[in-house]
Amino acid sequence: MHGQIASSRLGLAFVLAFGLLASISAYAQQKDARESDRTAIRKILVAQQTAWNQGNLEAFVVGYWQSPELTFSGSEGVQRGYDGVLARYKKSYPDKAAMGQLDFSDLEFHFLGKDAALVLGRWHLKREKDELGGTFSLVWQRFPDGWKIVHDHTSLGSEFAKK
Amino acid sequence: MHGQIASSRLGLAFVLAFGLLASISAYAQQKDARESDRTAIRKILVAQQTAWNQGNLEAFVVGYWQSPELTFSGSEGVQRGYDGVLARYKKSYPDKAAMGQLDFSDLEFHFLGKDAALVLGRWHLKREKDELGGTFSLVWQRFPDGWKIVHDHTSLGSEFAKK
Repeated sequence: MHGQIASSRLGLAFVLAFGLLASISAYAQQKDARESDRTAIRKILVAQQTAWNQGNLEAFVVGYWQSPELTFSGSEGVQRGYDGVLARYKKSYPDKAAMGQLDFSDLEFHFLGKDAALVLGRWHLKREKDELGGTFSLVWQRFPDGWKIVHDHTSLGSEFAKK
Repeated sequence: MHGQIASSRLGLAFVLAFGLLASISAYAQQKDARESDRTAIRKILVAQQTAWNQGNLEAFVVGYWQSPELTFSGSEGVQRGYDGVLARYKKSYPDKAAMGQLDFSDLEFHFLGKDAALVLGRWHLKREKDELGGTFSLVWQRFPDGWKIVHDHTSLGSEFAKK
């Protein structure tokens, strides 16, 4: 009888220990996945920055979802579709002088389930004649070919607005 | 032998029909869930609008996630936390005259998995002395007590910016 209790206690201890290890492992796996997701998204943003600073808008927009459902909100309202977003960039930044040197900073990641993320940050543009900057909010979704920006809301900081 | 083939064909037909019905049912359920999610989020936005138009900022911010992790991006950078967001609204809109009459329009829903959504829209403020408006991007998450705004990026339309 005592032997049975001892063995069932031992069984329970094994189950608990196994459960704990499984939880730790699941947590570690999720943490690792998040870390690799962050790295993947950061890599796209660095590539965007590089493309911009080479004056290459076509390469810059590769980070966006290639879909007519892509949206970009800002002071000009809502731009729609990959082509619409590219056209907006081309209109606002017609040449290398207007594009200047872009820098992203203060990135913050907030995951929304397994396959979506919100990334906040600041943008800064250094040009010959002036400086511009502000905040952006990027909504990302994971697709079979990787993470893509499905929505971008970018705004100008009041310190750079026309007085 | 022929009887066996006929019965296995019948079996296959049943399995396919069942699979099809199950898929349709799952799709309909998801569509229904989305419809009720849309309704729930719309209801919160209408309540926000009503609270604003009664000059009640405390009631207005109830739609936001009551957490220090709540973020609000705009021309003043990133505001943090429920209290920070409320403080920003109080500073920018100190009284009923500054608050004016708020109207949300052009709502667009983009679901990000089961428990997250992106809602785009336009805001318009009619005041005694002027008018203001622009776009907003709201990121929502589903919590045990319902949908909450976890991030708000609101910007002023260029048509309302100081020239």
